[in-house]
Amino acid sequence: MISVEEARDRILSALRPTAAETVGLSAAWNRVLAAPVIARLTQPPADVSAMDGYALRAADGSLGAALRVIGAAPAGHPFDGRVGPGEAVRLFTGSVVPAGADAILLQEDATRDGDSLRVNEAVVLGRHIRRAGQDFAAGDTVVPAGRRLTARDIGLAAAANHPWLVVHRLPRVAILATGDEIALPGEPIPSGGIVSSNSHALAALVRAIGGEPAVLPVARDDEAAIAAAADQLHGMDLLVTTGGASVGDHDLVIKALQARGMTLDFWQIAMRPGKPLLFGQLGLTPVVGLPGNPVSAMVCAILFLVPALARLGGLPPAPPPTTMALLGTPVKANDRRADHLRATIESDSQGRLIVTPFPVQDSAMLRRLALADALVLREPNAPALEAGVEVRIIRLDSLGL
Amino acid sequence: MISVEEARDRILSALRPTAAETVGLSAAWNRVLAAPVIARLTQPPADVSAMDGYALRAADGSLGAALRVIGAAPAGHPFDGRVGPGEAVRLFTGSVVPAGADAILLQEDATRDGDSLRVNEAVVLGRHIRRAGQDFAAGDTVVPAGRRLTARDIGLAAAANHPWLVVHRLPRVAILATGDEIALPGEPIPSGGIVSSNSHALAALVRAIGGEPAVLPVARDDEAAIAAAADQLHGMDLLVTTGGASVGDHDLVIKALQARGMTLDFWQIAMRPGKPLLFGQLGLTPVVGLPGNPVSAMVCAILFLVPALARLGGLPPAPPPTTMALLGTPVKANDRRADHLRATIESDSQGRLIVTPFPVQDSAMLRRLALADALVLREPNAPALEAGVEVRIIRLDSLGL
Repeated sequence: MISVEEARDRILSALRPTAAETVGLSAAWNRVLAAPVIARLTQPPADVSAMDGYALRAADGSLGAALRVIGAAPAGHPFDGRVGPGEAVRLFTGSVVPAGADAILLQEDATRDGDSLRVNEAVVLGRHIRRAGQDFAAGDTVVPAGRRLTARDIGLAAAANHPWLVVHRLPRVAILATGDEIALPGEPIPSGGIVSSNSHALAALVRAIGGEPAVLPVARDDEAAIAAAADQLHGMDLLVTTGGASVGDHDLVIKALQARGMTLDFWQIAMRPGKPLLFGQLGLTPVVGLPGNPVSAMVCAILFLVPALARLGGLPPAPPPTTMALLGTPVKANDRRADHLRATIESDSQGRLIVTPFPVQDSAMLRRLALADALVLREPNAPALEAGVEVRIIRLDSLGL
Repeated sequence: MISVEEARDRILSALRPTAAETVGLSAAWNRVLAAPVIARLTQPPADVSAMDGYALRAADGSLGAALRVIGAAPAGHPFDGRVGPGEAVRLFTGSVVPAGADAILLQEDATRDGDSLRVNEAVVLGRHIRRAGQDFAAGDTVVPAGRRLTARDIGLAAAANHPWLVVHRLPRVAILATGDEIALPGEPIPSGGIVSSNSHALAALVRAIGGEPAVLPVARDDEAAIAAAADQLHGMDLLVTTGGASVGDHDLVIKALQARGMTLDFWQIAMRPGKPLLFGQLGLTPVVGLPGNPVSAMVCAILFLVPALARLGGLPPAPPPTTMALLGTPVKANDRRADHLRATIESDSQGRLIVTPFPVQDSAMLRRLALADALVLREPNAPALEAGVEVRIIRLDSLGL
């Protein structure tokens, strides 16, 4: 058996990000940048006022001084002239500081009467002036490649004057469920069969991580049917299978895909729930084979598929993000398999995260998996822990998983 | 001035969730459920084996017993007959336990030779049998209304045999930037002007929270232009404006919209960055007016617009989610305005979140806002804090904001 970390490392090291495409700025949210955003202008483009007030020469701004207002410069309408001795120009936050001026008199520190202005608080040279380029200068890298674009990044790219961005193509993921016993929701269910939940749960997970799922028709437990699906993978960046449970997870899938030339790694992973995982390469398409049990499939997807999709989508190779929380109940010592306890999260009175594993962790309980806010990570042979001890968790709620 | 909390409460109490629509299960990820998902079947539908092995009568499963294998029941192919005294049926994980059997002999505890089976470890009545309905029973509410659907919820709804789900319509949000000085990215920039970043940052934020943005054409600082935009709001669930900075945030927007019959609340909020916020009702459409400054606009959007959109989208009224982190540097005592410090997050060697505010918090620094992973919430008049003290934060990174 190999460890979760080793399996993940092997998968990640075999994957390469998708190619780039150009998208409009308005379509770029949550996409992964494939080329850096270089500022095309300087922001602010000139020295601007940080406050509402008046531009003047610092030398003229002593307490009690009297000045003459020679014009105004609303934002977007710079003052053309020059501020000379004894002169002032009305400004607003963001207004360009006119030539000749080097200080700002705040409007609350001034008395104005027609064109006459009195200084009620001495000005300080340069104060309340935002210098040209304080935010960024033309040529600066404002967003680096390899970053998933937030709403704030979109605003910054706009401010840097980019109507188009170069991003990685969304990874296209073919999802193949196999099994004689499964039916799609709303379709006739064979005797003793179950409704297929893996394909659509995995498709949603692919969307959550920023990919494009293609749910292939269910393949019966039949080598030819699985091989036929394997022949239709052109343009797919990844094939995900969920095993037919009838003859041992993966057996038929392996036989069928190997007959089509798949190179194969098949791993027993020291983990629970889960354990068997298939990873291979079928022509240009990497293949990840997940267990058929829906809870095991989802936990394995979180541990292996989420990082794989992030990597395909252009992010650096990395495990799923973890955070720390305090145990709400004691947990038993772990055996030699890494465990992933389904757990709820709540905040205590001081706002700290309290994570409480469900008392029963049966891998057939899909409803309990859906109720979980987090997986508590238990390393192989981890000792028993008391309530209140800090443990590492993967939050599921915030990722839409 | 009013508090952040009071302003948010007033906004949330004025909003009602959008109407419902029916979408296919495959389109329902991240949508907010408008009607509960009631299980249409029982899962497991019958008693099933939790392991690979043999079904038999517990009375026949003592150590050393010899049995006759009378058939097999792969998952999806239940065994039709009945298990009688001295008989066993081959089972796999998920196989229906045949009539007559009440115990499971694990395959690793059995020796098989043709039809002969020897018991190497005594069985326990009922052990390794998952009872019908252990996961859920027909009629159970498996996903409640008002929940944003995760990938796991989609799997559960599929397992409960729902090809369609009833969800809230995505809130449609009109975004109106005003100002003489702003240009869209890639378009000619007026002298002294800036590239408009607010509209597209806000549109991305709307997408991040699960809404449909409509970026209206920029309105010049002109009452008629703003009023014309206000006349085009049919079918919009919310209007968001960002103020023209030239004559004081909001002045023209207020005049123009009031002339169209908007009822108005205009608030000075005891917060930084931000402060002025407009909330009103224009016919059927609520209106939120954000500051024109891009950093203030984005922080106000996170504090007010994110909860407003979540509420419109069908979630219960709630502030943005917060979590706790340890300060990486000391912070100064706060004045009477709630502050929202832009900060980075890292993990220490024990995996705890360390949050470090940027030393300069200038509200003109959009690049720094984009680099932030979190906002540190500082209450009005909060005392100075040392490094290592726990503070409340809003994480920005995980929300795509």
